[in-house]
Amino acid sequence: MLAAQQRIQPYIHRTPVLTCQTLDQMAGASLFFKCENFQKMGAFKMRGAANAILQLTEEQRQRGVATHSSGNFAQAMALSAQMLDIPAYIVMPSNSPEVKKAAVRGYGGEIIECEPNLAAREEALGKVVERTGAAFVHPFNDENVIMGQGTAALELLQDVDNLDIIIAPVGGGGLIAGTALAVHHFSPKTKTWAGEPAGANDAYESKKAGHIVPQTNPQTIADGLRTSLGDKTWPIIRDHVERIVLVSEEEIIAAMRLLLERMKIVVEPSGAVALAAIMKEKALLAGKRVGIILSGGNVDLKALAGFFG
Amino acid sequence: MLAAQQRIQPYIHRTPVLTCQTLDQMAGASLFFKCENFQKMGAFKMRGAANAILQLTEEQRQRGVATHSSGNFAQAMALSAQMLDIPAYIVMPSNSPEVKKAAVRGYGGEIIECEPNLAAREEALGKVVERTGAAFVHPFNDENVIMGQGTAALELLQDVDNLDIIIAPVGGGGLIAGTALAVHHFSPKTKTWAGEPAGANDAYESKKAGHIVPQTNPQTIADGLRTSLGDKTWPIIRDHVERIVLVSEEEIIAAMRLLLERMKIVVEPSGAVALAAIMKEKALLAGKRVGIILSGGNVDLKALAGFFG
Repeated sequence: MLAAQQRIQPYIHRTPVLTCQTLDQMAGASLFFKCENFQKMGAFKMRGAANAILQLTEEQRQRGVATHSSGNFAQAMALSAQMLDIPAYIVMPSNSPEVKKAAVRGYGGEIIECEPNLAAREEALGKVVERTGAAFVHPFNDENVIMGQGTAALELLQDVDNLDIIIAPVGGGGLIAGTALAVHHFSPKTKTWAGEPAGANDAYESKKAGHIVPQTNPQTIADGLRTSLGDKTWPIIRDHVERIVLVSEEEIIAAMRLLLERMKIVVEPSGAVALAAIMKEKALLAGKRVGIILSGGNVDLKALAGFFG
Repeated sequence: MLAAQQRIQPYIHRTPVLTCQTLDQMAGASLFFKCENFQKMGAFKMRGAANAILQLTEEQRQRGVATHSSGNFAQAMALSAQMLDIPAYIVMPSNSPEVKKAAVRGYGGEIIECEPNLAAREEALGKVVERTGAAFVHPFNDENVIMGQGTAALELLQDVDNLDIIIAPVGGGGLIAGTALAVHHFSPKTKTWAGEPAGANDAYESKKAGHIVPQTNPQTIADGLRTSLGDKTWPIIRDHVERIVLVSEEEIIAAMRLLLERMKIVVEPSGAVALAAIMKEKALLAGKRVGIILSGGNVDLKALAGFFG
């Protein structure tokens, strides 16, 4: 993972770690916020995308990269590819918000639209890979992506000593798996926790069952956390994530509010889930030193206004 | 001012300096944002309040401090006094928002309400000083306050080399006067600019006239910038501020939007004025290195939602 950190360093920001006395008092713990909402294009996804692309051979790079995503990974892939001057083909469902398509195009990505279902997505992806010879990079179920995402926690561990716990949100599991690996290798006495929306609790159910339980009908504003785990992220989560804390939609919005009002930072609902989890479990965290990965800040201002207006 | 910096250092945050490639591209300049929106209680006012209180004798401290303010300075005074365990008496107009009164009380300040006019305010202040023997500290027209506010620019100059320009908002002038003094003494080849709302353009008019022109009927959402200059801030502004850039309400809101959407940070309208000024004058700033004091982040989420909903 140190190699990944060195590899992607020219293409990403080393994001700051912020603290807030008011939130420390409210939580009864010392909180260290790793601000990936300040990352390039607004989320940690840049780390994994850049790491995956940088592992390609020169010949592969010439043919470009392909992925499917309607969210931050689409933008991260397009921007990483643009920085390395290689083509990016992004399969997006036709009902993706125009603002997200515009962002991908703004970073020079070519969008391939498909019907909003899994079969259509895989068909569209297969076709574009066949047509272009581009290398497929999965948004989270990919070892290089996982290693890249883990560098956020690695930096946090380098910047802050003696963390008792690091907590990150879990969706498909790329971020939390990378975080757990970073903690396991570089600070084995630190525990890794995950925050997950109660309305998309497949990681929680998977841990309970001992095998992957797919997410069928996710109901949450945390749009980055609606996916199922993958077969590469799941074993890491199973073995190295100590606890998954479920939080309600109200708790997610309350955490966003704390981050806006007290820390003066914009964090998307998925990113606020980790703080919501801390507030929920503060009895267990009294006096602890807790690192929090604020995963991203890409929230539409109209949506934000809707939460608080 | 180095003495002030050392004096207040235990009581304030050394706030981070953030950069943003997207905003650099939009402005055509290199921008360095001094994030006083992350300062304790959410604004630079902590610096001046702490510096003024720390200059009092032990005997004076026992009798406490008094000021009049309906805004950030009221909270800054209350919190600074609380940290030093001395009484704070804050004269506030009776129509101040309840949330601001609650914040002052939360920091242990005693509120003295008065009718919302200058005569009532001065009478209330006179009475409380007579009753308690508290030392009056003016929110901006005070040398110790000015020196304290200047430490934000001083830190920025310490952290970033070769700035061509530093820009800060101007209201009563405490921040801009302190900024101009810091620049004058520690980086004389840097220029100091001010941003001011066109609807509260008394500093601009004062510079044009060569004497203080009072602000009579301010019309701006930048509630920290509605006051007139003072006789201690004015001469510094007259002599050391090269240019005052007027910005419209729409430009202020557009700057807040950029800060929220691109930098993921919450800045109050008064704080966004400096960025609005840069965007307005970007033809003059091409290729320059520009420091920006983001003065504060205390904006009600309902108000914020109103701007962008």
